[in-house]
Amino acid sequence: MADRYLSFTGTAPGRFLTRRLGLPQPAALHRWSAGRPLLEGGLLHLTAGRPGLDGLAGVLARTMAHAQTADGLLVDSAPPADGSSGSGGDRPAAVVLDATGVADVDALAEVHAALHPVLRSVADSGRVVVLGAPLDPADHRQAAAQQALEGFVRSLGKEIGRGRTVTLLRLTDAGTAESTLRFFLSPRSAYVSGQVVEVTAPRPDDSPAGAPTDPDRPLTGRTALVTGAARGIGAAVAETLARDGARVVCLDVPAAGAGLDALAARLGGLALPLDITAADAGARMVAALPDGLDVLVHNAGITRDRRLVNMTAERWSSVLDVNLASVLRTTDALLDAGTLRPGGRIVATASIAGIAGNAGQTNYAASKAGIVGLVRALAPGALAEHGVTVNAVAPGFIETKMTAAVPLFIREAGRRMNSLAQGGLPVDVAETTAWLAHPGSGAVNGQVVRVCGQSLLGA
Amino acid sequence: MADRYLSFTGTAPGRFLTRRLGLPQPAALHRWSAGRPLLEGGLLHLTAGRPGLDGLAGVLARTMAHAQTADGLLVDSAPPADGSSGSGGDRPAAVVLDATGVADVDALAEVHAALHPVLRSVADSGRVVVLGAPLDPADHRQAAAQQALEGFVRSLGKEIGRGRTVTLLRLTDAGTAESTLRFFLSPRSAYVSGQVVEVTAPRPDDSPAGAPTDPDRPLTGRTALVTGAARGIGAAVAETLARDGARVVCLDVPAAGAGLDALAARLGGLALPLDITAADAGARMVAALPDGLDVLVHNAGITRDRRLVNMTAERWSSVLDVNLASVLRTTDALLDAGTLRPGGRIVATASIAGIAGNAGQTNYAASKAGIVGLVRALAPGALAEHGVTVNAVAPGFIETKMTAAVPLFIREAGRRMNSLAQGGLPVDVAETTAWLAHPGSGAVNGQVVRVCGQSLLGA
Repeated sequence: MADRYLSFTGTAPGRFLTRRLGLPQPAALHRWSAGRPLLEGGLLHLTAGRPGLDGLAGVLARTMAHAQTADGLLVDSAPPADGSSGSGGDRPAAVVLDATGVADVDALAEVHAALHPVLRSVADSGRVVVLGAPLDPADHRQAAAQQALEGFVRSLGKEIGRGRTVTLLRLTDAGTAESTLRFFLSPRSAYVSGQVVEVTAPRPDDSPAGAPTDPDRPLTGRTALVTGAARGIGAAVAETLARDGARVVCLDVPAAGAGLDALAARLGGLALPLDITAADAGARMVAALPDGLDVLVHNAGITRDRRLVNMTAERWSSVLDVNLASVLRTTDALLDAGTLRPGGRIVATASIAGIAGNAGQTNYAASKAGIVGLVRALAPGALAEHGVTVNAVAPGFIETKMTAAVPLFIREAGRRMNSLAQGGLPVDVAETTAWLAHPGSGAVNGQVVRVCGQSLLGA
Repeated sequence: MADRYLSFTGTAPGRFLTRRLGLPQPAALHRWSAGRPLLEGGLLHLTAGRPGLDGLAGVLARTMAHAQTADGLLVDSAPPADGSSGSGGDRPAAVVLDATGVADVDALAEVHAALHPVLRSVADSGRVVVLGAPLDPADHRQAAAQQALEGFVRSLGKEIGRGRTVTLLRLTDAGTAESTLRFFLSPRSAYVSGQVVEVTAPRPDDSPAGAPTDPDRPLTGRTALVTGAARGIGAAVAETLARDGARVVCLDVPAAGAGLDALAARLGGLALPLDITAADAGARMVAALPDGLDVLVHNAGITRDRRLVNMTAERWSSVLDVNLASVLRTTDALLDAGTLRPGGRIVATASIAGIAGNAGQTNYAASKAGIVGLVRALAPGALAEHGVTVNAVAPGFIETKMTAAVPLFIREAGRRMNSLAQGGLPVDVAETTAWLAHPGSGAVNGQVVRVCGQSLLGA
């Protein structure tokens, strides 16, 4: 399970040898830990195109205050004369480029002009967040320029190196994107890079559950249900939502036994041993949640790999049933019973295999693509009127017992074939889930967010 | 430029050695050639879910007649008892699975049941075409099941092997998809696999230019303009459109000189030496096309690779100007002057780099992503009312002088990192362009079709 190559390249002889041989040099990623500042350096706020996004400077200033960084917000600051300057204060930990006003190809030159001189100075594990506008269907020049930002960001993510990430957020309003900006500027998004996220859903004026009172525990007073919680990614999700203040109902198959009980006890939550494919699974979830549910995390999943020519009907159906049909059935039951409260959050686990396909996984990829279809259909409708969002996370190569069982060569390829040259950790998926579950993330709806270090694999 | 590895694995010792060493074994693809049947075997028509698509059997029967195959159309035929049977008549050259009626996860079991027993018998370079329905935003069970088909098809494309391709077409009407079905069932789509194409745009009742009278020369009486026509992909596009009956205006920079003249003369067309970035380029195109234009192919493009930290403003702007700004300017000029006729076709060249990004190509990827944005914005609007479609082709690794200059290791990776384990040929992009340019393809609009052998790279 341990990534020995990553450990080796973290040593002095490892760095020397891998550099001489031209081998991948994964950076040690800066992840969240209690007490450590969310930004270890200043934040550089740049603009390309005119006019910029109203209120962005205020949102960034609040983000900096929350991040408890020693350095300040640098607005439209001139680049350091010597880009390679090594002193702390000169190296921004993050760059936010407001490119929402880029409305034609000429204005794209300002994107180059803004970032080209400052990139070298961005700190290790730093963040580059480009803000774009939704494509205007009535203006093909604007649509071309804004879509160009996507090719730009995905390319920059592949070349920037040193654990730094690059993200494109498409938004229309800085205020509704605050929780999203905080996530992508923080160590919590360490393994999310090269992705495009739309933050454009209209948010109901008032979430009945109310705004979080403690910004460090935004889920206080809320209840979350996590399926497949006994281990791996599910356990990390349960822990992270509990850290953020939620009361967590930990669901897993009865065979998970004492491990599930211990986790729930440690988190001050509830253990719910239950086979989600059972006919009465939805009804039992409803019964276990008499006071309602705020955050529903569909994480449970299985694999039964075979090429289609060798795949039995049983292997096909078991994967489709656990990973997709039971998600549909239990979601419907929780919605029909009114258990999921207004302002609720549904987060389902998709997979890169569901986006790109994978040899030997027609069943698994079908089930995970089905999750994407579920999100796309369910997000914009009646639920949105009640402030409920429906999103998916799509993990790439994550270090778990499941991936530890993958043959060495394929495992090594999975680990290195991404822009960060390493596998992710379960906590990376959990942090992404926590951002989507945040009460302030109501403008993020219908998104499929890859947590993959910008894996090369895709569609 | 030659793929020596592919040549080697085509020999008996090459086959023996690569099999023993577990190396990629690319199949020799069956491409179109005059006089050769379009299908070398029967077509198996299967159904999953109920009811099937109206009129599909008739469309497939006409396709078989056009394909001049010796074998017939096998509707819902029982699978051969011995899937590995080698006799010609028992091995379908193509399978069409109508899954438009799959409305829930249970019905997906019929997809497995239909294809699992027959896959082994599908001939080398055969075709599997799955027909799906558009996602229903009001029915999340249907949306999940139909999106599941995407994960299924992309996985099957990665595991099926032997030069066989797998495609998902989303459609609502068999009649408007006939030209598309013919393309994906024929050798013309040899290098297009693992892709999803929507054939759902409403088609005006009557294309003013009329239906083609000669199915083998569907562009008879039509005029096409191809930029960057002097060599590589552009030259192949010009030749293929001329083969299909079009009068082709071959545009390239004045420096292309005699080569451009020779090509135009050979095709019976017109040479138009012109720098597309010139301020009067659009006006000169309009002047060269006094009788109007039916097919506009934006193929010209350049690269000026550098990482962003080392990229000058001049490198940035020259790529954006040639690949994107000039496409916008000249398209606008041809539309404003009324040169592009009703029923016209715009096909622009994007790139996998514009979808997935590429290190060292922030400028090129931005320009090619911009093409995607142009297509998305321009396709559904006023042009669609006049029967004009706007689509893009996105080439992967294509064997040209440009890719021959790529360093050996990167070139080999580009060639093998796709489901067909080989690079494509310029003619593969040209055939895809010809399908999009076909008068019968009016229901294909706003699509970005990858011609990449199902490259692993994506977003």
